[in-house]
Amino acid sequence: MASLQYLTGDKSGIQQFVDKFDTFLFDCDGVLWSGDTPFKGAVETLDMLRNKGKRIVFVTNNSTKSRVDYRKKLDGLGIKAGIEEIFSSSYSASVYISRILELPADKRKVFILGESGIEQELAAENVSYIGGTDPAYRREITQEDYQKIASGDSSFMDPEVGVVLVGLDFHINYLKLATALHYIRRGAVFLATNIDSTLPNSGSLFPGGGSICAPLVAMLGGVGVPGAEPLSLGKPSQAMMDAIEGKFKLDRNRTCMVGDRINTDIRFGIDGGLGGTLAVLTGVTSKDELMTSSITPTAYVDALSDLLEGA
Amino acid sequence: MASLQYLTGDKSGIQQFVDKFDTFLFDCDGVLWSGDTPFKGAVETLDMLRNKGKRIVFVTNNSTKSRVDYRKKLDGLGIKAGIEEIFSSSYSASVYISRILELPADKRKVFILGESGIEQELAAENVSYIGGTDPAYRREITQEDYQKIASGDSSFMDPEVGVVLVGLDFHINYLKLATALHYIRRGAVFLATNIDSTLPNSGSLFPGGGSICAPLVAMLGGVGVPGAEPLSLGKPSQAMMDAIEGKFKLDRNRTCMVGDRINTDIRFGIDGGLGGTLAVLTGVTSKDELMTSSITPTAYVDALSDLLEGA
Repeated sequence: MASLQYLTGDKSGIQQFVDKFDTFLFDCDGVLWSGDTPFKGAVETLDMLRNKGKRIVFVTNNSTKSRVDYRKKLDGLGIKAGIEEIFSSSYSASVYISRILELPADKRKVFILGESGIEQELAAENVSYIGGTDPAYRREITQEDYQKIASGDSSFMDPEVGVVLVGLDFHINYLKLATALHYIRRGAVFLATNIDSTLPNSGSLFPGGGSICAPLVAMLGGVGVPGAEPLSLGKPSQAMMDAIEGKFKLDRNRTCMVGDRINTDIRFGIDGGLGGTLAVLTGVTSKDELMTSSITPTAYVDALSDLLEGA
Repeated sequence: MASLQYLTGDKSGIQQFVDKFDTFLFDCDGVLWSGDTPFKGAVETLDMLRNKGKRIVFVTNNSTKSRVDYRKKLDGLGIKAGIEEIFSSSYSASVYISRILELPADKRKVFILGESGIEQELAAENVSYIGGTDPAYRREITQEDYQKIASGDSSFMDPEVGVVLVGLDFHINYLKLATALHYIRRGAVFLATNIDSTLPNSGSLFPGGGSICAPLVAMLGGVGVPGAEPLSLGKPSQAMMDAIEGKFKLDRNRTCMVGDRINTDIRFGIDGGLGGTLAVLTGVTSKDELMTSSITPTAYVDALSDLLEGA
């Protein structure tokens, strides 16, 4: 295990650590708040960093909200943020589709398995889409659907769909899974906003975006089979880091990722070659897990607000 | 590759092959019919085998139908069969739960992800169940549900549930997946009627029972992680073969499995140490796949009715 610095209570250690970075990428849930309750001192810690001239970017895998929605959520928790400081997986995926993926002119439509956050971000990038929250897909499959889906009948299967984008969908159903599968089998690119199998809620875990992908992966051949798994545009995928770097013109050496999950947040920062990573113990990863994991951040604190001691 | 006998047109070969067996286990879709159309000569072939004193068992992974439903389907296709000749994965799972799984007296209820076929077979074995086709689960998840599911509140989470049984569910949704996950995390045994990821329909493939399991497997740790995958009671699981043997008092040496899918039907027979396996080319597995597969049946025919030549 690489050496792991414990910063809580270490005033000069905190100061030296903070001075090493210009930009802090923040995971949110488990770092700044839990559910709808902000952690004590989190807002003040962000203010302290801003007062030192640090740039803050909020990086979230939550695809159900757009950046506009997310800003409202931050605002409701007392955290002031600009839209431009928020980088969500729905935004990451939309930027990837509009600016990086080179689709033929007649294959630029996206079939969405997911909620309105994805729709809003695709619309902001001028990408056409179908599926998503459209009530036309919130129903039982019929024998007519089977035939139209199997044959690619253009009265149901849009020939312009060139991407299937999957995020967390609270309205997942059989018809949508069947439709998504057939678009992919007909050549659509298989993308995911994120592949977290679970999502914390009410002190437990519930189905996350990766669980919505799982039936499709199984039908396409299974985990590990070439072509069966989506390209994820959320943490810890480096496609998201590349998009963040491109947007913010980061100096990776002077950037620190702050998060509570070692296998997503901390791995995201380490794989991205950032100058540092900071784990907090207010979320998913426990101290025991942190101490025994093969993924080692640069430093850790019990809670984010411990950084205030270095102010 | 083991030697593979081609029986089509080989009258004495057919006679010798048929004489080796007392019991024929038949896969149905792709062998006897496709969709709702029986194959030419299939009924006559079954009659020929019966006239020679052979026992016939119809073995199907389709969990959405009960044996009673399945008999009606067979009847509608002109195939006479008794309930006792039908062995479906919903029946297999119900027998396993009622007669083999030793559950504490206060943990004998089953939470079903699936359709009425499972409900009917559990009821026939006097096993209590919840979920399934109950309209109370066909709705959106609410914030109250999250709290009740997470806390195990007995007004929603039945403390007597000791098994989660997953089959093909055309009404899969977020609430059901979340509920099933939490029953398993609270100690319920995770069973599946079958783990076929896809199901043929309209000349293509649609989500099968294994795709309904896939989100749960992902949330429990993923494919290959101990405890994350269900015990399957359908082909090619030998739990199904053991149940068939127990019910029919088979002499495995004098039993032949007939099927169109090498990786389920033929593997089921080979793994079960049956005296023989017979592949037909009227279903999923093509001749090329058959010739290059590491799974080799005893013999194959172009179509089941080719056996009539040996009559």
